[in-house]
Amino acid sequence: MNSFVDLPAMLAACPARCGTVYLVGAGPGDADLLTLRAARLLAQADVVVYDHLVGPEVLALIGDGSERLYVGKERSHHSMAQDDINRLLVRLARSGRNVVRLKGGDPFVFGRGGEELQVLAAEGIAFEVVPGITAACGVASYAGIPLTHRDHAQSCTFVTGHLKDGSCELDWPALARPRQTVVIYMGLSGLATICAQLVAHGLPQDWPAAVVAQGTLASQRVVCATLGTLADAVAREGLQSPCLTIVGQVVRLRDELAWFGTQDTGVPATTHLSTIEA
Amino acid sequence: MNSFVDLPAMLAACPARCGTVYLVGAGPGDADLLTLRAARLLAQADVVVYDHLVGPEVLALIGDGSERLYVGKERSHHSMAQDDINRLLVRLARSGRNVVRLKGGDPFVFGRGGEELQVLAAEGIAFEVVPGITAACGVASYAGIPLTHRDHAQSCTFVTGHLKDGSCELDWPALARPRQTVVIYMGLSGLATICAQLVAHGLPQDWPAAVVAQGTLASQRVVCATLGTLADAVAREGLQSPCLTIVGQVVRLRDELAWFGTQDTGVPATTHLSTIEA
Repeated sequence: MNSFVDLPAMLAACPARCGTVYLVGAGPGDADLLTLRAARLLAQADVVVYDHLVGPEVLALIGDGSERLYVGKERSHHSMAQDDINRLLVRLARSGRNVVRLKGGDPFVFGRGGEELQVLAAEGIAFEVVPGITAACGVASYAGIPLTHRDHAQSCTFVTGHLKDGSCELDWPALARPRQTVVIYMGLSGLATICAQLVAHGLPQDWPAAVVAQGTLASQRVVCATLGTLADAVAREGLQSPCLTIVGQVVRLRDELAWFGTQDTGVPATTHLSTIEA
Repeated sequence: MNSFVDLPAMLAACPARCGTVYLVGAGPGDADLLTLRAARLLAQADVVVYDHLVGPEVLALIGDGSERLYVGKERSHHSMAQDDINRLLVRLARSGRNVVRLKGGDPFVFGRGGEELQVLAAEGIAFEVVPGITAACGVASYAGIPLTHRDHAQSCTFVTGHLKDGSCELDWPALARPRQTVVIYMGLSGLATICAQLVAHGLPQDWPAAVVAQGTLASQRVVCATLGTLADAVAREGLQSPCLTIVGQVVRLRDELAWFGTQDTGVPATTHLSTIEA
């Protein structure tokens, strides 16, 4: 090789040698719920940039030769600011590496995936999106709670339970309606407020509601109650994040349809005894 | 073996020999979006019972030794009535076979999965649920349209565009609101009505809206327009089912974030020229 030519530097400066960023959803927790495409990309990536909601079983699918970069993002204290994450993705791609940007759930549902892609697009970095099982779908399936059902709910709405400034400003009149299911992502800290507001805007006190903690994992716990009793029941049971709240008549179907985890308690999956705990 | 004992009949009559029914989501179309668990179950099932929304690439993952049963379900003319499907699942499980009940998208989002499980539960058949990438998430990802975005939409709502009796009765006041994304499953026949009702209930004529046909497949087509122009634009382009309609400001992000299929048209994925067609 000609020693006067800095080939790596030339290649790195050449747009044609830019790596691609794959924005990949890691699903709700259970590594078996990764898509085939996500698993293949994880095994082949040069570098994987991941959040705190991605669990160890999913990380175990990363190839031995891949670099792993944790960029955190727990509530209130981000391990790395969003701007720094954006710059990191651009720099990694410009260095010619293929990057998997791995996020819990689905990257286009409360994942800020769109914001990260806008930065990549503006910088001319190639990207692809690999959807993941969003928490609402994964958690509902493992909790035995159908999100829609012709007898109970013709629509489902996903909202996030806390905002940038820590407040909880939701469109209550749109959420406090019958014949729909509302799923609140990460709403544990605002749970009492959410339940009270839904009642204040017209849903009955005895409207069914549930919180699922560590959904889809072996440690999954489900507390079923009503809008009037849920916050107390959850506090009593000492549930830990990550949690998901499901509000609507479909919650009652868990009484018939619970299957995951019921084997461990001596209740066979086929008998569907009530597992409503509150 | 003692010829006086009909062992298969005895085993079939014994509840302990019942097979398990796995209610599995096939995802939005691209077979690469199946979950690892779904792919493993398809390879190992004794019998797979599937709907018309499940494509050939997904069916190719079924094991060679598995029986395949098509039970259809196109709109208006069901190949097999829901009651017959329910009875079929019970009979197959009772015969001692492990059954994969395969549905497009996610079985708990407009899939009647809950209804089928209620029958199994009542009959004492063991079941598990494997969530799939629901059409809204898969199609939005491949269309470059984030379902939520801090600047544009704090929530997303999934509704179905036609009802049992062919009418289109939706909760218009809840849907015609700013700062949310509305995804309408299978709404092509009612598209003009849906757009008109959303405008009648307060959304502006120039509110962004898109229809995605054959989302996530190589044949994917996207028409972006407004509530005032979408129905005509879709008719002009001659889109075919299955289709998904996305309504909200996030639709405009496709202008920056389109990536899938753009390579085929000579538009490199990194430049993100406007692909808005109407």
